[in-house]
Amino acid sequence: MHESMKSGMTAFEHGTLWAVLVCGVIGILYALYLRRQVLAADKGTDEMQRIAGQIQEGAYAYLTRQFKTILSLVGILFVALVASGWSAGIDIALGRGIAFFLGCFCSAFTGYMGMTLAVQANVRCAHASRTSLAEGMVIAFRSGGVAGMFTVTMGLVGATVIFMLFYERATEVLLGFGFGGCLLALFMRVGGGIYTKAADVGADLVGKVEAGIPEDDPRNAAVIADQVGDNVGDCAGMAADIFESYEVTLVASMILALAHGAVTGNPRDAIIWIMFPLMVRGIGVLTSILGIHIVRMKNDDEYPLDAISKGFIWSAAVSGVFFFFIARYYANDSRLFWATLFGIIMAVAMYKLTEYYTSGKYKPVQEIARAAQTGPATTILTGFAEGLESSVYSLLVIAGCIFGSILVFGAEANAVEILYGVSLTGLGMLTTTGVIISMDTYGPISDNAQGISEMAGIEDNSANVETLDAVGNTTKAATKGIAIASAVIAAVSLFGSFQSKLAGGGEEVSLAALQKFPIQIDQPTVFIGLLIGGAMPFLFSSMTIRAVSRAAFLIINEVRRQFHEIPGLMEGKEGVLPESGKVVDICTASAIRELIAPALLAILSPAIVACWLGWPGLGGFLGGIIVSGMLLAVLMCNAGGGWDNGKKMIEDGLYGGKGSEAHKAGVVGDTVGDPFKDTAGPALNPLIKVMNLVGLLIAPVIVAGSHGLNSRLPGAGLVVVGIVLAAIVVVALIMSKKTTKDIAEVQQKLEAASGE
Amino acid sequence: MHESMKSGMTAFEHGTLWAVLVCGVIGILYALYLRRQVLAADKGTDEMQRIAGQIQEGAYAYLTRQFKTILSLVGILFVALVASGWSAGIDIALGRGIAFFLGCFCSAFTGYMGMTLAVQANVRCAHASRTSLAEGMVIAFRSGGVAGMFTVTMGLVGATVIFMLFYERATEVLLGFGFGGCLLALFMRVGGGIYTKAADVGADLVGKVEAGIPEDDPRNAAVIADQVGDNVGDCAGMAADIFESYEVTLVASMILALAHGAVTGNPRDAIIWIMFPLMVRGIGVLTSILGIHIVRMKNDDEYPLDAISKGFIWSAAVSGVFFFFIARYYANDSRLFWATLFGIIMAVAMYKLTEYYTSGKYKPVQEIARAAQTGPATTILTGFAEGLESSVYSLLVIAGCIFGSILVFGAEANAVEILYGVSLTGLGMLTTTGVIISMDTYGPISDNAQGISEMAGIEDNSANVETLDAVGNTTKAATKGIAIASAVIAAVSLFGSFQSKLAGGGEEVSLAALQKFPIQIDQPTVFIGLLIGGAMPFLFSSMTIRAVSRAAFLIINEVRRQFHEIPGLMEGKEGVLPESGKVVDICTASAIRELIAPALLAILSPAIVACWLGWPGLGGFLGGIIVSGMLLAVLMCNAGGGWDNGKKMIEDGLYGGKGSEAHKAGVVGDTVGDPFKDTAGPALNPLIKVMNLVGLLIAPVIVAGSHGLNSRLPGAGLVVVGIVLAAIVVVALIMSKKTTKDIAEVQQKLEAASGE
Repeated sequence: MHESMKSGMTAFEHGTLWAVLVCGVIGILYALYLRRQVLAADKGTDEMQRIAGQIQEGAYAYLTRQFKTILSLVGILFVALVASGWSAGIDIALGRGIAFFLGCFCSAFTGYMGMTLAVQANVRCAHASRTSLAEGMVIAFRSGGVAGMFTVTMGLVGATVIFMLFYERATEVLLGFGFGGCLLALFMRVGGGIYTKAADVGADLVGKVEAGIPEDDPRNAAVIADQVGDNVGDCAGMAADIFESYEVTLVASMILALAHGAVTGNPRDAIIWIMFPLMVRGIGVLTSILGIHIVRMKNDDEYPLDAISKGFIWSAAVSGVFFFFIARYYANDSRLFWATLFGIIMAVAMYKLTEYYTSGKYKPVQEIARAAQTGPATTILTGFAEGLESSVYSLLVIAGCIFGSILVFGAEANAVEILYGVSLTGLGMLTTTGVIISMDTYGPISDNAQGISEMAGIEDNSANVETLDAVGNTTKAATKGIAIASAVIAAVSLFGSFQSKLAGGGEEVSLAALQKFPIQIDQPTVFIGLLIGGAMPFLFSSMTIRAVSRAAFLIINEVRRQFHEIPGLMEGKEGVLPESGKVVDICTASAIRELIAPALLAILSPAIVACWLGWPGLGGFLGGIIVSGMLLAVLMCNAGGGWDNGKKMIEDGLYGGKGSEAHKAGVVGDTVGDPFKDTAGPALNPLIKVMNLVGLLIAPVIVAGSHGLNSRLPGAGLVVVGIVLAAIVVVALIMSKKTTKDIAEVQQKLEAASGE
Repeated sequence: MHESMKSGMTAFEHGTLWAVLVCGVIGILYALYLRRQVLAADKGTDEMQRIAGQIQEGAYAYLTRQFKTILSLVGILFVALVASGWSAGIDIALGRGIAFFLGCFCSAFTGYMGMTLAVQANVRCAHASRTSLAEGMVIAFRSGGVAGMFTVTMGLVGATVIFMLFYERATEVLLGFGFGGCLLALFMRVGGGIYTKAADVGADLVGKVEAGIPEDDPRNAAVIADQVGDNVGDCAGMAADIFESYEVTLVASMILALAHGAVTGNPRDAIIWIMFPLMVRGIGVLTSILGIHIVRMKNDDEYPLDAISKGFIWSAAVSGVFFFFIARYYANDSRLFWATLFGIIMAVAMYKLTEYYTSGKYKPVQEIARAAQTGPATTILTGFAEGLESSVYSLLVIAGCIFGSILVFGAEANAVEILYGVSLTGLGMLTTTGVIISMDTYGPISDNAQGISEMAGIEDNSANVETLDAVGNTTKAATKGIAIASAVIAAVSLFGSFQSKLAGGGEEVSLAALQKFPIQIDQPTVFIGLLIGGAMPFLFSSMTIRAVSRAAFLIINEVRRQFHEIPGLMEGKEGVLPESGKVVDICTASAIRELIAPALLAILSPAIVACWLGWPGLGGFLGGIIVSGMLLAVLMCNAGGGWDNGKKMIEDGLYGGKGSEAHKAGVVGDTVGDPFKDTAGPALNPLIKVMNLVGLLIAPVIVAGSHGLNSRLPGAGLVVVGIVLAAIVVVALIMSKKTTKDIAEVQQKLEAASGE
């Protein structure tokens, strides 16, 4: 059995696997080349380097501490994963555990590499902008390219090697790899998101509490933390998140390919459907290099966004051509091409849709700015209504992806085929991942470049860095839309392979076996699962938004303490610097403490539901998370983006410009939007993927632990496990509440002090 | 066949049907008695009567115009309903159409009676409060009792008569009755919600635009409209909404009872399970009378809320005792008692939960007030996070209802039994409807009483009316929670009977037939349906929130025009009154125009989805609406309630009291919360019910129009119908956008004028 798939593969296919690996290696070499090129650029003045050094230090400190904290959890989960794979044999069990470690490592390494280069590139970008806009842009974009290339290559190399070791049993091991990636992404997104917005909100509010301190004043100890936050949140979090989507769509497509082969009874069907995604990914690496490499501006008069868009479009177009050829001449099935192409189109649709709702060029943001004239309340209401609307259209794009797959495969196709088509759509959507991550990482680098220039008192590049920063805001917002869409498609693919896992994994699946595990929402347990699953994103968002508020209060307190206790700081005496490191420490500690409860919720809740309601309940639960998670994520990201750019329009002179009443209202909208768009919203992406992946991992256990198929409910042993896990989550929630109490005490002191 | 159920019933059962009718008649007589008692009270001073007269006039004008507008739609739907029942025979088809008319009439009449008495009771309550708190309270509460009694009796009498005419085919006709109720409730909730908040927000913002005008100044032409809004939104909307839940849980329980009888093969099973809900309702009428009648204060030192709570608790407890006896000695099945009792407990749980999240006595609202110290942004974020959290716990209550039914009926019970249990839980929850509606309607009456006293310059009752008003805010918020929960339970029951309808309606259902129609979310079409269904509440809320903003802008414009054009108004010259009628007209016209697009969306979207994705897609769609509709409704209602009471806490002197920075932040939260809690949130209740009811009505048509059972997708004819319906919705949406453009023009003029 173990040899069957390997021996069933043609020499061409074996050769192709090696070729895919070579593509991966080329990608890594290209990333190293970009890195060297960026680091060779000039680092600017001493003051710029000093500030950049502080940001680097803070960012390293945060990541190091985060990795250390989660190491013990990774250890526990390693054991759990080995145990979960035990029934499949010791090689699979250990393989899954090791792959899990590797997945964690790849995701962490991708984030780490992207971020460490970003914090070195920011100052170089700032310096290069002093001579030329084009040079500054290329440095920022190519630094992003390093993160992008690591994202696309690490996942591909890992998955290909695992496949070459295990063949038809590879999916069992790949689940471990994918879960490792997901877990790290969850931590990076949640921790990074809390960090970045706690620092941002804290720094902003200090300006209000301490009258007379402007927002980015160097006397403010929270300003460095704010810059660090941009890197840990936007760079590291985003790269890890997309890495994960990239990985799990591949795993899901392989599981569905195996199920397809089992259903048709022809092992060649499975092989072709597994090889096709690997080839798509290999091509994606090469076209990502193309896309990143051609992004350059002919001269300083070209608008940077046009150059970036060109790279994106070329990368997508060339990929499409290649996909056509492999689908037509290798797989001999042009349906695969159409499904993948559909994904590319959907990526563009999501990009445009997000741009429409978050760019000042279009009506929604203009409406928000207009509403700011009648105060903060109408600003909030208008932005919220726009966000609600945008979530509907984004969801229609996802529904369109699934419906497109139905059209391509025909209404008579079975669910396995259609869901395989959906996973191909996901693969197509992420084809240009290299370019997408570059565009995204470009954002915080150019943002930092502007910040460093301002703090170091450099003025000759201000027009250039402002242009770069404005472009960065657009690319950041638009790639967020793609990240959400790809997360949802990845989760749908995982959900689609859930039933195959229930039916006993890849090899033994038949249509009859699949039909033994219907997830019928007309069954009460499934419906309960659906309801509870739907509630999870709401609970998770509530927790992350509060976490930001709590951490922000601590920061305000610390900044105020420094003003009180450091002589000469408030007066701006020459040479007196705030203790920025302390604020960075508080941010780090808070972010890491605050991510524990949401992370436990994400990992344990599927297991609890499964122990309580059996596999039908778990199935409903996973479906519910996708629906409400998608809607809430888009709502929060787009409303936040809209408020942000609405405020910017006013700052650019509309309705009275800076300092007007409309501006004040715009700032309120922006502050509300900050944790929406940078903490709670993006953190929902890994949440829906992690929960669906946990569901896949525990599916066989739950089925084995149930009283046969008739009852559909789990046995006493599992119920006990469920109660224990539920107790852990409840304790975590209570501890998280306890933190609130501590904060309340701090705050009371703060109030008492301000009353003095 | 037609005679089988009738002949299978015992003489006791036939007698009981008459007894239930007699209960209904007693309830109506009691309502008329209460009405007479209230109207006999003194109407107060001339000035009070003049103001009350304006409110009455506005309220009548609104309701009359609304009823006229929807008459044509009712006509069209009458034809559609007759057509939808055609295959079941002409008597059923016509019966369904006529029952639809009756349902519309009963719902409208309930709302109308409640509201007309409320606008006459407000002034009487204000006058009675001048001598005694206890008397004022009794007038307000008993006026609410009239609406409450009409709600419980109209539905029961209608359903019982229909059952006595059609027996086992009654559910086909009752669907028409329920749909009529739902439709009117949707209009009342949406139209009333837009009206009340447009007037409220408009009146508030005028204070800001025209500096120096306090919020409730009699010179402000929008103040009367604001008072009218309280009545049309809170009284009429709420009564119609609960009437609808009350009705559809009964219909759903009957459909499930028929399915149960068909499954067991014993017609007696169906009869007992139909009789039990009717008896429960009959008992509910009597205990509602008891609950309303015992609400009185011994003296002015008693707190009004205690007296009201006593009525609620007694009514619930006595009902429980009766339910035990009929379950034990008539149905001989104590499971029915437990399921119903569970509903009573859940009503109390929802009440307490909502109170926890919206009352200043508990932490969530205190946190909101505390957050107001750091400005509007933190106020909004805290309230939003609390709202998110509350939606999770409320959803757990609903999941608990379903799980409770599983526990009661046993894990081995089939879905029909468990869902019947859920519908009994809904019946139990609404047992105390009479008291619940009294509590709710009491709110706007006491609110109006305070408003009228202030405007008429009456000061000797101010302490009393303020106490009454504060209690009203609590009861209003808490009953909202029960309204949502009962709407969701009603929708779940409807959804549970959806499959029975797919399988061919009551008589021919067997377990095998049911299993031909699995709603499997692992099927792509079902999943698409689930996603789109989940998006509907988001789209609907976006539309209603915008509608409020648009209408509010028109009102501001009109009030400003009056200040400019009526000589002496701004200066407060003796005898110069604003033209309040014009603002009332604008409110009425806007509310009615703005409700058309959301209403069309609600009615047509299930049909469009069914035509596009067949019955499986429709099934997913209905499930998706329930999940996201519930979460969003609770989020918006509780966040809104929290902001409202957070602001009140500050107004009562916390953190600097009225006029402080914290108060300003609280006002922003309250203004954001207004359309959340009074327009978008409550309007989701009828939305989820209407959509599920439309699903039930079209289920047989879709099944008949599909290419047999294998394809599960609809035929070409239905696709054409779907495209036509989709075109109608798109046109409605575009028209609604067009309105935005008109408003934008008005606003530009407004801006130009203010620039002069």
